[in-house]
Amino acid sequence: MRYISSTTVDGICGRQFVLGDIPGTLWTPAGGGGGPLILIGHGGRQHKAAPAVVAGARRFVTGLGAAVAAIDAPGHGDRPPITPPWHGRRPSLPEVVAFNAALAALAVPDWQAVIDALPDGPVGYWGTSLGAGIGIPLAAAEPRIGAAVLGLAAGPLDAAAEVTVPVEFLLQWHDELVPREQALALFDALGSADKTLHANPGGHGDVPAFEHDSSVRFFARHLGDPRV
Amino acid sequence: MRYISSTTVDGICGRQFVLGDIPGTLWTPAGGGGGPLILIGHGGRQHKAAPAVVAGARRFVTGLGAAVAAIDAPGHGDRPPITPPWHGRRPSLPEVVAFNAALAALAVPDWQAVIDALPDGPVGYWGTSLGAGIGIPLAAAEPRIGAAVLGLAAGPLDAAAEVTVPVEFLLQWHDELVPREQALALFDALGSADKTLHANPGGHGDVPAFEHDSSVRFFARHLGDPRV
Repeated sequence: MRYISSTTVDGICGRQFVLGDIPGTLWTPAGGGGGPLILIGHGGRQHKAAPAVVAGARRFVTGLGAAVAAIDAPGHGDRPPITPPWHGRRPSLPEVVAFNAALAALAVPDWQAVIDALPDGPVGYWGTSLGAGIGIPLAAAEPRIGAAVLGLAAGPLDAAAEVTVPVEFLLQWHDELVPREQALALFDALGSADKTLHANPGGHGDVPAFEHDSSVRFFARHLGDPRV
Repeated sequence: MRYISSTTVDGICGRQFVLGDIPGTLWTPAGGGGGPLILIGHGGRQHKAAPAVVAGARRFVTGLGAAVAAIDAPGHGDRPPITPPWHGRRPSLPEVVAFNAALAALAVPDWQAVIDALPDGPVGYWGTSLGAGIGIPLAAAEPRIGAAVLGLAAGPLDAAAEVTVPVEFLLQWHDELVPREQALALFDALGSADKTLHANPGGHGDVPAFEHDSSVRFFARHLGDPRV
């Protein structure tokens, strides 16, 4: 992991890194942490510096003393583009799920390399939409992931059944991209004995701010932050 | 409101009262509160001193500085029994919903009398199962209720549409008494713009303990506890 630049704002140190061909950012408490490692997976057509990613990173650093890593997903951000085949029209949900599954096959080893490159300790994953499409196979494949916040997705169902760690699952009751029944089916498919569904009114982009605080508490509960 | 007895344990003062023919308990912080009034509605075949009620009261007093009131529902606890018509067999869910709706018609004025008898201020309601069967019509009818935690119920749907205050709705994914689809339909029917669904694995009696902490935060968020 090679660090390219570093800035410290409001007690949070943000470092840009490259790991092989993976561009990423690592946020840590400037005064030292001691909390878990939280991985943040961005949504489709977003990237590691999207506002939601940066805001999440700040919450987890501040609320958990966490180190937080975000990387550009394959085909996103500073990486070579991977063009989806639905130019000029809106894709069907099965097309999106299938495309995201292919990206996930590339992204899972990326995330495993990031975990390898950072100090050992508890690891959580936070990602919705494409971030869940990648996070579900990652949580199924990678035993170092101890807890995950996922949601706003309809698949992949098979990998979901192999997830056994605690999951907090976000669902938007009027999601214009993911029909309610399919999101409920994905929650139902999760193999985790300890899973909790949080559903709120509004569309795909309308997850209420109080859910971010809930994510902090969820990770604290399951990754053993001694301060809560 | 006539107080019959009083005990103070761990900084919480619990007073038994009678208001007309309604027996109840009022818990307050022994050192003074300043928090909201939280009403707790017990479940079917339970009463105002059931362990879940007392545990909830302690959480709201401690976490919110609240005054907490619980009363015996009509036909329950120290009140004259109201015998349901299904002796010797298990009732259907529509029978339970109908019976609870009749109890609610009696219970709503009881709760309104309790609110009348206590100092003005923000009021929340917490109740699941029968407690929701009563709490939904109460929240629909009584404008002094500012927020409610409800759940584990399938009705009443009509009253739910008239509820407009913020609701946190608890659902058990494997509820043996309330089918998932019917509980989801009740959440869907709630007229509140601000409503949030928390679903967890397990049966009717298996709501996880962390949901109790979430109820405290929900009331703090909506009833304006200045300490959070």
